[in-house]
Amino acid sequence: MEDNNDHLVRSSDDQHPANLIPELCRKFWTLGWVTGTGGGASIRKDDLVYLAPSGVQKELMRPENIYVLEMSKQIDPKKRIYLRSPQNLKPSQCTPLFMAAFKKRNAGCCIHTHSQWAVLITLLLERRTENCKVFEINNIEQIKAFGRGWQKQGALGYHDTLRVPVIENTPFEEDLTEYLESAMDDFPDTYAVLVRRHGLYVWGETVNKAKQQAESLDYLFQLAVEMEKLNLPWLSDICPVT
Amino acid sequence: MEDNNDHLVRSSDDQHPANLIPELCRKFWTLGWVTGTGGGASIRKDDLVYLAPSGVQKELMRPENIYVLEMSKQIDPKKRIYLRSPQNLKPSQCTPLFMAAFKKRNAGCCIHTHSQWAVLITLLLERRTENCKVFEINNIEQIKAFGRGWQKQGALGYHDTLRVPVIENTPFEEDLTEYLESAMDDFPDTYAVLVRRHGLYVWGETVNKAKQQAESLDYLFQLAVEMEKLNLPWLSDICPVT
Amino acid sequence: MEDNNDHLVRSSDDQHPANLIPELCRKFWTLGWVTGTGGGASIRKDDLVYLAPSGVQKELMRPENIYVLEMSKQIDPKKRIYLRSPQNLKPSQCTPLFMAAFKKRNAGCCIHTHSQWAVLITLLLERRTENCKVFEINNIEQIKAFGRGWQKQGALGYHDTLRVPVIENTPFEEDLTEYLESAMDDFPDTYAVLVRRHGLYVWGETVNKAKQQAESLDYLFQLAVEMEKLNLPWLSDICPVT
Amino acid sequence: MEDNNDHLVRSSDDQHPANLIPELCRKFWTLGWVTGTGGGASIRKDDLVYLAPSGVQKELMRPENIYVLEMSKQIDPKKRIYLRSPQNLKPSQCTPLFMAAFKKRNAGCCIHTHSQWAVLITLLLERRTENCKVFEINNIEQIKAFGRGWQKQGALGYHDTLRVPVIENTPFEEDLTEYLESAMDDFPDTYAVLVRRHGLYVWGETVNKAKQQAESLDYLFQLAVEMEKLNLPWLSDICPVT
Repeated sequence: MEDNNDHLVRSSDDQHPANLIPELCRKFWTLGWVTGTGGGASIRKDDLVYLAPSGVQKELMRPENIYVLEMSKQIDPKKRIYLRSPQNLKPSQCTPLFMAAFKKRNAGCCIHTHSQWAVLITLLLERRTENCKVFEINNIEQIKAFGRGWQKQGALGYHDTLRVPVIENTPFEEDLTEYLESAMDDFPDTYAVLVRRHGLYVWGETVNKAKQQAESLDYLFQLAVEMEKLNLPWLSDICPVT
Repeated sequence: MEDNNDHLVRSSDDQHPANLIPELCRKFWTLGWVTGTGGGASIRKDDLVYLAPSGVQKELMRPENIYVLEMSKQIDPKKRIYLRSPQNLKPSQCTPLFMAAFKKRNAGCCIHTHSQWAVLITLLLERRTENCKVFEINNIEQIKAFGRGWQKQGALGYHDTLRVPVIENTPFEEDLTEYLESAMDDFPDTYAVLVRRHGLYVWGETVNKAKQQAESLDYLFQLAVEMEKLNLPWLSDICPVT
Repeated sequence: MEDNNDHLVRSSDDQHPANLIPELCRKFWTLGWVTGTGGGASIRKDDLVYLAPSGVQKELMRPENIYVLEMSKQIDPKKRIYLRSPQNLKPSQCTPLFMAAFKKRNAGCCIHTHSQWAVLITLLLERRTENCKVFEINNIEQIKAFGRGWQKQGALGYHDTLRVPVIENTPFEEDLTEYLESAMDDFPDTYAVLVRRHGLYVWGETVNKAKQQAESLDYLFQLAVEMEKLNLPWLSDICPVT
Repeated sequence: MEDNNDHLVRSSDDQHPANLIPELCRKFWTLGWVTGTGGGASIRKDDLVYLAPSGVQKELMRPENIYVLEMSKQIDPKKRIYLRSPQNLKPSQCTPLFMAAFKKRNAGCCIHTHSQWAVLITLLLERRTENCKVFEINNIEQIKAFGRGWQKQGALGYHDTLRVPVIENTPFEEDLTEYLESAMDDFPDTYAVLVRRHGLYVWGETVNKAKQQAESLDYLFQLAVEMEKLNLPWLSDICPVT
């Protein structure tokens, strides 16, 4: 049996990515984000990327299930080279999407959820005749949880409008990559992309920021669905107090 | 006191069926699937079938509460022979339904839930004038969690329509067996059957697959109920991107 | 300091009422039944009655918080005599209502919840012009979780109609007692009474039966609220298959 | 490294404020009150005030993350002096709001939530043409969980109307302070203030009372949102039984 670099996923530090990813996934399972092995999470530390595998029950994931690769060594996107591959598992189809957040935004963590609130938001937008490709909400305190954007300082303000682009789903998850990258180009300040009838990709500079933004987005999506049921609009023209 | 084959349910391996069934039931209780002792779960390992008992609080079940029988020794369905019977308990009325999934589909695990989302789906279908005997949904990513069908390779695709047949409830649960078996014949590729005003039977080749499909179905049922509240249709004609 | 019979609530047996009541209350808190110290639970073992105190946070209750009294020694309902009273606590106003279930129905356990689903059911009934004093539902599998009635054998069937009487709330909880007792007289087979704009009292011969019926009722109340939102009727005329 | 008074947050007593705040925040996270690092909690013990920091994931908070200050030493509200400041953290913007409850009401604990139910209540009130600045509900048992008011004995009764004032949100949380204090003046008996499109501030004489009132308010807000969906009014004219 060849050396599989198992030392890369063995650490007694609970902040090590190989320990953090299973801990995050356990939490996400209770939130309904990774039901039925859907969704996933990835952490980048310098040049090393740690990835949850495909198909494993997310609330039961263990450090030894984690894939590791070197970002700088990935030349051909069709032929990924892993520094460590768990036995009897398959890499996640989300890998190229996580990589896009790491490469294009220098993210430290990227989270993918199948949250029902995210899916419902994309369905509610789909039946609109205009602006069906972006979720917009403003004048809600939780919006302050989001950074102003890539390479910008500070956080969004209460009166700012949070915008999350929506891309159409594709039969093969890896085919989403080019649309995700286009959405990043079109919305340079976004930290998240909704995938129609599928879920959400959300990232942050650190694990804490990615998790904070993932929780806050899910909060806003659930709130927006409840607002729709109660005929309350997502956008309002409350002016800043002067 | 006669020998009751207690060794069959004693193992230090947490993957042993007698340990897995209580663990699954605890989880299902928190999901609202086995409220008030309703629902249940069964695992088959080769010729041995492990069954949760009737009436026990599902979140408090223990390995010593598990029934065991040999599939090959069951000649008369009216007179079941147990290899191990827990004292002071009764076998579950679901037993013949679990057996149907094991015999007709070679399943390794079968789960029965009383999920409110499953019940609501059957009620929403019941008031339709047509197609009231099958739940259909398509163009939702979570559909990919389902296998293509019995003895078929691969998983359903995003554009495929997931179909789950609905059978009518009967006063005695064991009387459902023939209707369940008919539904299996009519829908040879299904991994699940809804029971009107009652709940769901869902199975898989392995415990992991059965659980993944159970979670994914419940996700889709809840999503579909929310879609109904928001006047969003379950079926859409989004075409595959070519 | 006088002897306070602390031995009555000290036991290493997790099935002892002084251990079971805190365990049940922890569970009920997660279900939203005893929010903000509302609701409660009581267990009777032969002549001894064990009672949760007033005002204590239900998820943090401990065996030493439990009151104990002898049923046979309670002559004057206005002047209750406790065998054991925890220091610095007050007895629950629910005490006479729990006692009614023990005396009139020989119950072994009585549970009081402030479940929002129970409250909503009483509000939905209140605006009806007729039959506003009884909740009725039929043709739902979970109905089988209920016994046929006091001193009767067996369980309700799938086609039976479950009936739970509703009494009006009173400013002081102990004043509910006479109305609760009247409802027991008018509905001799019920195991539960709804209190308008307040919650539910539900009991059973044993702790397990009381808990099973409490969970099953809450399941049916939540289901019925969702049915109302979806314009699905609580009663249907599906006939028994003959 | 200078002395940072770390002894103020080190205690083996689980009732010590530095242990209680993280314990409360863990619980609040599971209730959806402090999603994405939003919300917070503070406890006052005599002259010492213990505060959760800004930005920390609330379910992962630890005693060493807690700020401590002396109430009597705070002369200039713009220049707060901390007895203990955790390294690498920032004090919460909620600090002056918590201080208002401590100073003006002699509260022992103040809780701030971003509960979606609280936010939805403020949105439902906002679209009204009158009485949009106060939430009112009556004839619900859970109202009894609230005290009659500051320096008053006893609790609200079942027929009393619970009133919670609503203030408008401001871009900077500390700017809410004057509006919160005005609302306290206008509603001298309230134990809580809603912040439009933001959340809730709720306090009590003790940690237990603050938590009980926070849970009970959230219960009433969720109930009121469900009532709105079902077209049930929040106020009714049921008269006291005489």
